[in-house]
Amino acid sequence: MSPKDAQLQALVAPIAGDLARMREVIADALASDAPAVSDMTDHIGRFRGKQLRGALVLLSGHARAATTKAGTVDPELPIVAAIVELIHLATLVHDDVLDGADKRRRVASVNRRWDNQVAVLLGDLLYSRAFHLSTTLRSPLASQLLSTITQEICAGEIEQAAGRYDFEMPLDVYERVATAKTGALYGAACELGFRYPDGSEFDGAGMRAFGREIGLAFQIVDDLIDLSGNEEAAGKSIGTDVEDGKVTFAVLHAYQNADAATRAHVRDAYTLPGLDGEPGGRLARLREVCDLEPGCARARQRAAELVGTARGRLERLPEGPWREALFTLSEFVLERRW
Amino acid sequence: MSPKDAQLQALVAPIAGDLARMREVIADALASDAPAVSDMTDHIGRFRGKQLRGALVLLSGHARAATTKAGTVDPELPIVAAIVELIHLATLVHDDVLDGADKRRRVASVNRRWDNQVAVLLGDLLYSRAFHLSTTLRSPLASQLLSTITQEICAGEIEQAAGRYDFEMPLDVYERVATAKTGALYGAACELGFRYPDGSEFDGAGMRAFGREIGLAFQIVDDLIDLSGNEEAAGKSIGTDVEDGKVTFAVLHAYQNADAATRAHVRDAYTLPGLDGEPGGRLARLREVCDLEPGCARARQRAAELVGTARGRLERLPEGPWREALFTLSEFVLERRW
Repeated sequence: MSPKDAQLQALVAPIAGDLARMREVIADALASDAPAVSDMTDHIGRFRGKQLRGALVLLSGHARAATTKAGTVDPELPIVAAIVELIHLATLVHDDVLDGADKRRRVASVNRRWDNQVAVLLGDLLYSRAFHLSTTLRSPLASQLLSTITQEICAGEIEQAAGRYDFEMPLDVYERVATAKTGALYGAACELGFRYPDGSEFDGAGMRAFGREIGLAFQIVDDLIDLSGNEEAAGKSIGTDVEDGKVTFAVLHAYQNADAATRAHVRDAYTLPGLDGEPGGRLARLREVCDLEPGCARARQRAAELVGTARGRLERLPEGPWREALFTLSEFVLERRW
Repeated sequence: MSPKDAQLQALVAPIAGDLARMREVIADALASDAPAVSDMTDHIGRFRGKQLRGALVLLSGHARAATTKAGTVDPELPIVAAIVELIHLATLVHDDVLDGADKRRRVASVNRRWDNQVAVLLGDLLYSRAFHLSTTLRSPLASQLLSTITQEICAGEIEQAAGRYDFEMPLDVYERVATAKTGALYGAACELGFRYPDGSEFDGAGMRAFGREIGLAFQIVDDLIDLSGNEEAAGKSIGTDVEDGKVTFAVLHAYQNADAATRAHVRDAYTLPGLDGEPGGRLARLREVCDLEPGCARARQRAAELVGTARGRLERLPEGPWREALFTLSEFVLERRW
């Protein structure tokens, strides 16, 4: 276990029981009688990442509970956390189809192990299970909020697909799309944790904003890893954004500050036929023709700003271990190398 | 308008107001502020088919209402019908990705007009909108029942994908998978119409069975069209099942009753490299090497049996125009050529 992993584990230790319950619910939701289905759900059970979104639901719930007389979280909250993780898992399975990715958390992606057809279906099945689980809860808050958010996620992904090869895209448009694509679910995790089962929208606004900001920071860092990380450390395919025409923060910044000749080289790296077959592919060519470092530095700085703003919002919470945990957890978004 | 179309229109005339309201709800659900999204939702608005599933919700609702004192359907029922149609639309968009289809109801399919990536995302968006709409209703019945059914649909599609090129598949397994894939949503349409907002599961069982049986019959006929129809009449690509390795009722019947040499030829028609490029492709080869007519005849007979059983269930409903409409509508499943 890396020092970072150990630190994360210490952070979530106070919610270990809730996380264990969340994982049971996820395992039950992945179970299936049909062998063709259980083969696949067993496989994706191995994708398990840090489960940050589920942890955010639970930590936000405890932060809220600390302000109440009872002081305990709602017994359904681990189910809510499981639903958020299942929706995330569904988006991962579909993302891998969209990206044509080979690896996901060091495990073959579903589209590689089987094919795109079943990956589409499996993602649909996970969405349906998540929605179904949300309809079994006694409060409609989770199903209402999460079905709204999945619409935002899909619309964000569609806008991202429409914006491929758009090197002129303003950075604030990139941020709006990345917030929809990634920040929205982080925001819903924090808001739901804080509000479930009956908190008002007004009450949840601060935690929603906190989640959306760290989610956007997470996406900026994720895009940086695809651009400048290495596959072994990342545990997943890298360079997929360049192959797929996705122009992310650092590239947009570099392109929009480059001279005309460099711009033409950047476009070529993304689009010239035949580059896919070269060692390192399009990403290697892109690094050759353009100094990405200033763009990467600006992206890291922007992610840090977002986390700073997000942390400021936590000051309205009462002091205590849950606030501390949320505070420290937001740091992981910046420092992750996985 | 064909005589059949005119007959269908006459059938649904008594629910014309409810259908118009259903279409308004669908149009609202397809609207979007993001141009990238509205381009696509405008496009799929043109897929509009016979909307049989929505009509079944409304007719079943009226059949139930006729047995009550008030005699009127719930004002939310057209929204329920719209949700069922949106889920159907989502499955169509994803099916076209899975099938690699070029045309859907004489309009280019989403994956052809844009690409597979956006088709996956658009399907996800439609599912999310449908679920979201169901969470806005005052009864949780629609969200509970439809999120259960979408799981069955996806699991059925996964089993179908796992069973590709399985020429030994027993016909009852084909029927179980086709029922999950297609019959389930017909069943849910009829059950929801009959039960919404607060009918018991017991009350809905007969209409669910009616729907599942006519849905399975519909799928058997649909598979026959892909095998023996022509593209112009069908308004969609045909021969896709053979290209895609799907072994449907008539082929299973023909194969399982053929001699060893014919069986080998059938397998070759499905699998030999290079056949995709030939005029008519694999389907033309399949028709050459194997007499499909007895299989097709048995498939038509089986579909007629199913519709007969389904109609028998309607006898428990009180006599009247709604029962007549459901009775006649079930005939369309057999006679459709679109």
